[in-house]
Amino acid sequence: MGRTVKVAAAQLAPVFLDRAATVAKTCDAIAEAARNGAQLVAFPESFIPGYPYWAMVRDPLSIGEFNRRLFDASLEIPGPDCATLSDATKKARCHVVVGLTEREGSTLYNAQLVIGPDGVILGKRRKLMPTSHERMVWGHGDGRDLAVWNTGLGVLGALICYEHSNALYRYAIQAQGEQIHIANWPGGIAINGIIDAAARHYAFEGQCFVINVTAVLTEEIIAALGQGGEKLKSGGGYSAIIAPNGRFLAGPKESGETILYADLDFDSITNMKMIVDSAGHYARPDVVRLHIDRRAQHPLVIDEA
Amino acid sequence: MGRTVKVAAAQLAPVFLDRAATVAKTCDAIAEAARNGAQLVAFPESFIPGYPYWAMVRDPLSIGEFNRRLFDASLEIPGPDCATLSDATKKARCHVVVGLTEREGSTLYNAQLVIGPDGVILGKRRKLMPTSHERMVWGHGDGRDLAVWNTGLGVLGALICYEHSNALYRYAIQAQGEQIHIANWPGGIAINGIIDAAARHYAFEGQCFVINVTAVLTEEIIAALGQGGEKLKSGGGYSAIIAPNGRFLAGPKESGETILYADLDFDSITNMKMIVDSAGHYARPDVVRLHIDRRAQHPLVIDEA
Amino acid sequence: MGRTVKVAAAQLAPVFLDRAATVAKTCDAIAEAARNGAQLVAFPESFIPGYPYWAMVRDPLSIGEFNRRLFDASLEIPGPDCATLSDATKKARCHVVVGLTEREGSTLYNAQLVIGPDGVILGKRRKLMPTSHERMVWGHGDGRDLAVWNTGLGVLGALICYEHSNALYRYAIQAQGEQIHIANWPGGIAINGIIDAAARHYAFEGQCFVINVTAVLTEEIIAALGQGGEKLKSGGGYSAIIAPNGRFLAGPKESGETILYADLDFDSITNMKMIVDSAGHYARPDVVRLHIDRRAQHPLVIDEA
Amino acid sequence: MGRTVKVAAAQLAPVFLDRAATVAKTCDAIAEAARNGAQLVAFPESFIPGYPYWAMVRDPLSIGEFNRRLFDASLEIPGPDCATLSDATKKARCHVVVGLTEREGSTLYNAQLVIGPDGVILGKRRKLMPTSHERMVWGHGDGRDLAVWNTGLGVLGALICYEHSNALYRYAIQAQGEQIHIANWPGGIAINGIIDAAARHYAFEGQCFVINVTAVLTEEIIAALGQGGEKLKSGGGYSAIIAPNGRFLAGPKESGETILYADLDFDSITNMKMIVDSAGHYARPDVVRLHIDRRAQHPLVIDEA
Amino acid sequence: MGRTVKVAAAQLAPVFLDRAATVAKTCDAIAEAARNGAQLVAFPESFIPGYPYWAMVRDPLSIGEFNRRLFDASLEIPGPDCATLSDATKKARCHVVVGLTEREGSTLYNAQLVIGPDGVILGKRRKLMPTSHERMVWGHGDGRDLAVWNTGLGVLGALICYEHSNALYRYAIQAQGEQIHIANWPGGIAINGIIDAAARHYAFEGQCFVINVTAVLTEEIIAALGQGGEKLKSGGGYSAIIAPNGRFLAGPKESGETILYADLDFDSITNMKMIVDSAGHYARPDVVRLHIDRRAQHPLVIDEA
Amino acid sequence: MGRTVKVAAAQLAPVFLDRAATVAKTCDAIAEAARNGAQLVAFPESFIPGYPYWAMVRDPLSIGEFNRRLFDASLEIPGPDCATLSDATKKARCHVVVGLTEREGSTLYNAQLVIGPDGVILGKRRKLMPTSHERMVWGHGDGRDLAVWNTGLGVLGALICYEHSNALYRYAIQAQGEQIHIANWPGGIAINGIIDAAARHYAFEGQCFVINVTAVLTEEIIAALGQGGEKLKSGGGYSAIIAPNGRFLAGPKESGETILYADLDFDSITNMKMIVDSAGHYARPDVVRLHIDRRAQHPLVIDEA
Repeated sequence: MGRTVKVAAAQLAPVFLDRAATVAKTCDAIAEAARNGAQLVAFPESFIPGYPYWAMVRDPLSIGEFNRRLFDASLEIPGPDCATLSDATKKARCHVVVGLTEREGSTLYNAQLVIGPDGVILGKRRKLMPTSHERMVWGHGDGRDLAVWNTGLGVLGALICYEHSNALYRYAIQAQGEQIHIANWPGGIAINGIIDAAARHYAFEGQCFVINVTAVLTEEIIAALGQGGEKLKSGGGYSAIIAPNGRFLAGPKESGETILYADLDFDSITNMKMIVDSAGHYARPDVVRLHIDRRAQHPLVIDEA
Repeated sequence: MGRTVKVAAAQLAPVFLDRAATVAKTCDAIAEAARNGAQLVAFPESFIPGYPYWAMVRDPLSIGEFNRRLFDASLEIPGPDCATLSDATKKARCHVVVGLTEREGSTLYNAQLVIGPDGVILGKRRKLMPTSHERMVWGHGDGRDLAVWNTGLGVLGALICYEHSNALYRYAIQAQGEQIHIANWPGGIAINGIIDAAARHYAFEGQCFVINVTAVLTEEIIAALGQGGEKLKSGGGYSAIIAPNGRFLAGPKESGETILYADLDFDSITNMKMIVDSAGHYARPDVVRLHIDRRAQHPLVIDEA
Repeated sequence: MGRTVKVAAAQLAPVFLDRAATVAKTCDAIAEAARNGAQLVAFPESFIPGYPYWAMVRDPLSIGEFNRRLFDASLEIPGPDCATLSDATKKARCHVVVGLTEREGSTLYNAQLVIGPDGVILGKRRKLMPTSHERMVWGHGDGRDLAVWNTGLGVLGALICYEHSNALYRYAIQAQGEQIHIANWPGGIAINGIIDAAARHYAFEGQCFVINVTAVLTEEIIAALGQGGEKLKSGGGYSAIIAPNGRFLAGPKESGETILYADLDFDSITNMKMIVDSAGHYARPDVVRLHIDRRAQHPLVIDEA
Repeated sequence: MGRTVKVAAAQLAPVFLDRAATVAKTCDAIAEAARNGAQLVAFPESFIPGYPYWAMVRDPLSIGEFNRRLFDASLEIPGPDCATLSDATKKARCHVVVGLTEREGSTLYNAQLVIGPDGVILGKRRKLMPTSHERMVWGHGDGRDLAVWNTGLGVLGALICYEHSNALYRYAIQAQGEQIHIANWPGGIAINGIIDAAARHYAFEGQCFVINVTAVLTEEIIAALGQGGEKLKSGGGYSAIIAPNGRFLAGPKESGETILYADLDFDSITNMKMIVDSAGHYARPDVVRLHIDRRAQHPLVIDEA
Repeated sequence: MGRTVKVAAAQLAPVFLDRAATVAKTCDAIAEAARNGAQLVAFPESFIPGYPYWAMVRDPLSIGEFNRRLFDASLEIPGPDCATLSDATKKARCHVVVGLTEREGSTLYNAQLVIGPDGVILGKRRKLMPTSHERMVWGHGDGRDLAVWNTGLGVLGALICYEHSNALYRYAIQAQGEQIHIANWPGGIAINGIIDAAARHYAFEGQCFVINVTAVLTEEIIAALGQGGEKLKSGGGYSAIIAPNGRFLAGPKESGETILYADLDFDSITNMKMIVDSAGHYARPDVVRLHIDRRAQHPLVIDEA
Repeated sequence: MGRTVKVAAAQLAPVFLDRAATVAKTCDAIAEAARNGAQLVAFPESFIPGYPYWAMVRDPLSIGEFNRRLFDASLEIPGPDCATLSDATKKARCHVVVGLTEREGSTLYNAQLVIGPDGVILGKRRKLMPTSHERMVWGHGDGRDLAVWNTGLGVLGALICYEHSNALYRYAIQAQGEQIHIANWPGGIAINGIIDAAARHYAFEGQCFVINVTAVLTEEIIAALGQGGEKLKSGGGYSAIIAPNGRFLAGPKESGETILYADLDFDSITNMKMIVDSAGHYARPDVVRLHIDRRAQHPLVIDEA
C-alpha cells in the first residue's frame, strides 16, 4: 500500500442566502472533519450562500428579488468572508475546496475556492459555461479556470456540475496530472443516474480519485422559493468518494446531511495508469491535441507605455 | 414523439478463430435482427474472428501460435469476407456495424466495419491505441479513425473498448454531430461497473444514443485458450441500449447470447441538446479547442509523375 | 507451414565483356535451375556482360577502351538480348532477376532486369548512385528505381551492392511490402564480413527473404584486365539465401561457380512481422516519414499538343 | 593515424529492480572504466533498474506487481538518482551513456541518459516504439528522441534494441553526423546472429563506430521472476566495439560481466566516408528524403498570457 | 573504328533572288556531292533564294522592293520547288538539309528543309527568333521547330545562325539525342571568331558532329544591293565539319565556293559521351529542367465538336 | 566609353596539397593584383589546395592516401582559412573568386568562393556534377549553386571546368543578368581548343565578359603524383579575359605563372545585348523555359517546435 490521504465530502445544506451563517456552518464542518482526520474537505456547488434554484422553478420575471439577494450574499475573493474561511482552514490544518457565488464588479460567478492548510488561498476557478437557467445568474469563466493545484496532498482539480458533460474540460484538468478531483453539484438533481455515471467514469478516465459532493435540498429551501418550489423534491444528493478503478470508497449517500470520509491509497492511481494513462502512454498526441487558451478574458486591453 | 429508428445489439459469441463460421453466424444474426425490424445491428469488439484473450492470460512467449491463427482468420477490407457481409446486409436492408480484426499488409488492426443497407461499405475505423496486452496483437489507427458516418438513420459514430476512457477521442466523435454511438467491448471484462459508467455517461455527455455491445465469453473459448484460460470467468457481458438522458432503453444484459432491441426517439436528442450541447452552445471554443490531424499515417510518401 | 517458393541464387562468372555468350550462359543457368524446381533465379550485379573491374584497378586514362567494349556489350531494354532472355525464362516457366549493364542513349546504367514466367519483362531498376570508380562508367537512376514487383511468387524487390548501405533506399523498398529481396554484388569484394552483415540484417529489418547473389571473379577475368588486374584476388563471393529471422537457408558460398537453392516458407514472414513490422505497427509515421519522388528525371520536359 | 578516443562497453547485470544499488554499481563501473582510461562508458538497455523480463515470460494478468516495482524503482530526469550518476561521471571526467527506465507523470519510458564529463546531463532519449511485450510497460518517445549530441569526443548517437530494425530511425541519427553510436540491448536475447548483423551493419552503413552493449542475464534475475523465469537462459550477451569498416575492435563478448575497451581512430570514419557517405555524396536527396517531426508530443497545448 | 557516314557542306553562292536558278544550282550540287560519296549534303542559311543582306545595309525605307522580290522568290512547303529538290535528292540517294525562305500565307520564314534519300520531306524547321534586321523580313517559329529527325544516318538536328547563341535552343536539340548537327549561316559575317567558337563548342557540348555551312557573299550580290552594298566585304565564310571532341575534320574554309567532305566515325560520339553526356549522366534534371512547349502557335484556336 | 572595371586572372600553381602555403600564396597574389589596380582577382579550379590529378592518372585502389591528404587540406566555409583569405581581400579592397576544395561533414566539394572588398564572404558555389574520375573525390552541388552575386562591380557568375559543356547551367547563370563570368579550370588539360571555344562562345552567348583562369601544372606536381604522373604534360593553361563580342582583352596565356589584367568596358555588354539578348528579346519563353530547383538538397528534413 502506498501513501494515503484522508478526505471528506461534506453533504450539507446552506443557510439559504445567508452568507455569514453559511460561512459559519462551513467553518464548523471544516473543524469537525479535521477532528475526524480529514486532510481535505470538499463542499457542494455554490454552497455559500446556496444554489439559485429560483432560476430553475420560477418565471424569469419573478426572480429579480432573489437575484438581488444572492448578489448581496455573494463573496469577493479575497475579502472578509474568505478571511474567515482561511482562518478556520488554518486552524484545522487541512485543505478546503468550497463552492460559492463570487462577485467581481457587478457580475456573479459560480466558483470554487481552494484554501491550503496554512490558510492561504491557493486559487479559485469559475464555471466556464453556466447551464441553462444559470445563465440568468452567473457569468462565464475563462482559460484560467482550467488549472490544477499542486498541493502537499497531491494534484487537486475541480469542475462544477454539468461541466462534467464536456469532455474537453475534463481532459484539460486530467492531462495536467490531476490526482484528486472535486466534483461539485447542488442538491435535488440526482436523476437517471447521471451523476453516478459522471462521477465513476471520471475516476476511471482520469485515473484519479473523485470526491463527488452534492448539497442537500431541504424543505426549508423549497419553501423559501415560494411559488415554483413545489416543482422540486427535497433530497436528491449523491455524494461519494470513488477510487481510480471506479469503486466506491464512501457513499453514495443519496439524502440527508452527512460528512463522508475515505482513505485514498495513491498506489491505486499508478496501478490504473500502467494500463490506461490517458494523457501519457494511452494518448495519441499525433492525432488529437487539446489547445487551451489560458489568457484572462477582459473586454478592455490597455497598452501601457 | 419524433422520428424513430429501431436498433439491435447482438450480444453473441464468435466461433472462436474461425473466420468463415463467424462470418456466417454474423450473417444469420443480421437476418434475424432485420426480421425483427432492426434498421441497425451492432456486433461486439473483434467479433470476427474473436478477441485475443490469450494475450491477456498466457505468457508472451507462448502466444505466437494463437497470433498466427488470428492472422490467418483476420479480414481484409475490402475482401471476400466483407463481400459476404455486404450481401447479407443488403438482403436484410439494414445498417450493420461489426467489430473485426482487420489485416493490412502484415499488421493487424482492431477495427469496426460499417455497411449500409445497399451493401456498400460506408467506412471502417481502427482502434487508435490498443490497450496493454493488445499491443502485442494489433497496430494503431490514425486520424482517419475519428470519423462519423452520415447515414439514412442519422449520424453514426463508434469507439472500441477503453477508447471510451480517452475524453479527446470521445469529443472528436461527438463534436461531428454523432447521434447513434456504437460502443464495442469483448466479453468477460465487465468489472467494477466501468462499462456501465462509460456507456451511460457517453449518452449524457454526447447527447446521443449508445448501443453498447459486448461479446459472450463462453466456456468453449476459455477451454480453447489452454493454459491460462482458467484465469477468465465466462460471461461478463453488459450489452445495453441507452437514451441521451442516460436511461436504459434495453438491457443491460449481463450474460448469455441475445439480441437486444430498442426504438430510438430522435426528439430526445434535441431535448438534451437544448440544455447541454457539448459541441454547441455549451462549448467554449475560445478557451478549449480540440485539434485532430486526420491525415493518413504511412511511413512512405510517394510522389508520382 | 505456409506457402513455399523455391528460389535459386546463381553464383556464376560471366563470359567477360561478351554479351552474346553471357546471355547464352544465363539462359543455360535459368534452364538448369528450373529443372531443379526453382521458381525464381537471381544473377549477380552486371552479370551481363560483367562488372567493370578495370575502373577499380586501372588508371582512368587507360580505361577508355574497356569502357567502349562495355558500351558495345551492354543491353537495351527492351531489345534483342532481352528477348533472348525472355524466351529462356518463358521456356523455364520461372521468374528471373538478372544484373546487367543497360544502355539508354549514350549513358550506361547498372541495372536489374525482372522477367516473369510468361517471358514478359516485369520491370527494371537502375542503381541510384554508382560507387566511387563506378561513377566513371554508369549514370544515376531516379525515383522510378525504388519500386517493387507484385508477382505470382510474392512481392519482389532488389538493390545493388553498396545501395544496401543507404538506409533510405532499403526502407523505400521494404515499406512497399517486399517479401523476397534480391541483393546483387560483383565477385571479389567480400571483405570484413560487410556483405554478410548487410544481407542478414536486411532480412531481419525487412522481415523478408534475401537472395544474396555475388559473381565469381575468375583468373581469366583478372588476366583480361591486363595491367592492374594483379591487384584483385579471384573468388570473393558470398552468395546465400536467408530467412526473415536472419538464418541461412542456403550458403553462404564463398567461392566457385554454383547455384544455391532454398525453399522459402512464407509463414516465417508473418511470424516476424507480428513482432516487428517496420512499415506497419512498428513504424512511427507521426515522427519519421520517407518521401520518395518517383518521377522520371530527364532534363527535357516536352509538352505536346 | 588520426585523433583517437578510448571507449568502454560495460556488459554488466543490474541489481534487479533495486534502483539505489544499481545506481551505485553503475557509479563503480564508471570509476573503474575511467581508471582504465575510458573517455566514454556505455551501459545496457534499462540497466537501471533492470529490463522487464517478466513481461516476456509471465502472463499479463500476473505482471502488475512487477510493473509496480519497476515504477517505484524508475528514475526521473532530472532527479536525485541522476544527480548521483552526474557526480560519479564528473569525478571520473568521462562521458556516460546509460540505459534506464524513466518516469514522467505516470508513464514509464525506456530511455538512454547522456552525461558529460562535467556531470551535466547532455540529453536523453526514449525508445520510440516499444517491442511487443514491452508495450505493456513503457510508453512511446517522440521526434525529440531522434537527436545526436555534439560532445568533446565527437558526435554521439544512440538507439535501443529493435529500434535498430527500423531503417528510418537509423538514418535519422546517422544523417546528423553521428560518429559514435551506442546500441543498447538487454541480456539473454542474442539469437540467430541478429545483434551481430545489426551492430556490424550499423557501423558500415553509418560509417561510424558502434559500441554495442548488452546486459548480463543472471540466474538470480531469472529466479526473481518466479514462474515463467524457466523460459529464459542466462547469459545471451553480445557486447562489442566495432569500427566503421565493420571490424571488431573489442569483443564480441557473449557472456559474463566485463568491461570492453577500444581505441577509436577517427581517421577510419573519413576513409569510409570518402567512398560511401550515406548522408553526403552517396545520398540522393532529390529522390528520397526523410522528414522528421521533432516537435514534442503532448496532448495538451497551453497558451499562457 | 565504328560506323562511318560521309557528309558534305556546300559552301556556295545562290543565284541571288532567282528561285528557279538557285533550285537548279542546288540540285546540281546534290548530284555532285553524291557522286563523291556524300550521304548527307548541307546548304547555307536561306540559300534559296539568298539571304536578305539589304535589310542589314540599306535603310528600311528603301528595302520594300527587295522584300517583294524575296516574297516572289520564296518557296512553299510542300510545293513545286520542293518537288524538284525531292526528285534530285531521290536521284542522288542521299539526305539533304537546305536553308530557304519559306512562305506560308503572307508571312516569310527563315527555314531549313530536310529531305530523305527516297525524296520524302522528313521535316522542316523555322528560325525561332529572327535577329535584328531580319525581323523586318521573317516571322517567328514555334515549339515544333525544336525537333530532331531520326534518319538512317543517325539523329539529325539543325539551327540557324544566331540561334546558336541561345543555350536553351541548343540544349533542346542536343537532349533529343542529336548526332549530326547542321549549322546554317549566310556569307560575309565571319568576324571575331564567333562562328568558329560557336561551331566547335557546339560539337563539344553536344558530343555530336557539326556541319557548319556558310554561304559565299559574291561581289555580284553586293552589287545587286546597290546603295549600302559597299558596307559588306565579299567572302566571309567559315564552313567546316567538326568532330565531337572539337577537332576539324574538314575546313574551315573561309572564302570561295567549294564542297567540303568528311567521314564521321560514330564511335567518337560514344567516346565523348562516356565522359560528358550532357543530357545523360552529366545532367542534373533534379536541379535544372528545360521545358519545351511543342504546340503549334496560331492566333486562331478552333474547338471542334 | 562606359564604366570600366579592372580585373585580373591569376594563372598560378598551388603549393600542392599544402593548404596553408597555398592560402598564403593566394593572399600574396591578391595583394599584388590589387597593387596593379585590379578590382577583381580570379583564381583557378580547386586552386586551394590543388586539383586531384591523381584520380585521373592513378588506379582507384591507389588513390586513398591522396584523397585523405586532400581531405585534410580542404577548407570549411566559413572557417579559419576563409578568414585568412577574407583578411587579405579586405586589405586589398578588391573582389576575389577563388577555386578550392570545400569540406562539409565528410563530403568534399569542388567549390568557388566569392569574397567582397570588405572581406565578407558573398557566397560560394559547388560544381553540380563532377566529371568522370572527379566523382571519386567530390560530391554534387545543388540548385543553390546556380546563383549570381550582385556586387559593386556588377553581377558576377561562375562555373567550373566542364560545367561549361552543359548549356542549361550556363543559361541559368546568364539569365540572371550575369555581367562578368569567372570560368575555372585546372592546369594541363587545354587540348583541341576546347577551352578556347568554351570561353569565347560563353562571352558571345552570354553577352558578358569572361575571365577564364586555368592553373599551372608544374613538374613538381607531376613528380608528387608518383606512378601515373608520367601521363601528364606540364603546362596546359589557357587563361584569358574576353569581351562580350568574343575578342581577347588579355591572353590567351598558355603556360607559365602570370597574372593577366584587362579593363572591362561595360558599354560593350549593352552593344551586344541590343542585337542578341539571350534572356531578353532574343528568348522565346513561350517555347522554351528553364526550371531551376533552388532548394537545398539534404536527405534529412527536420521540423522543429
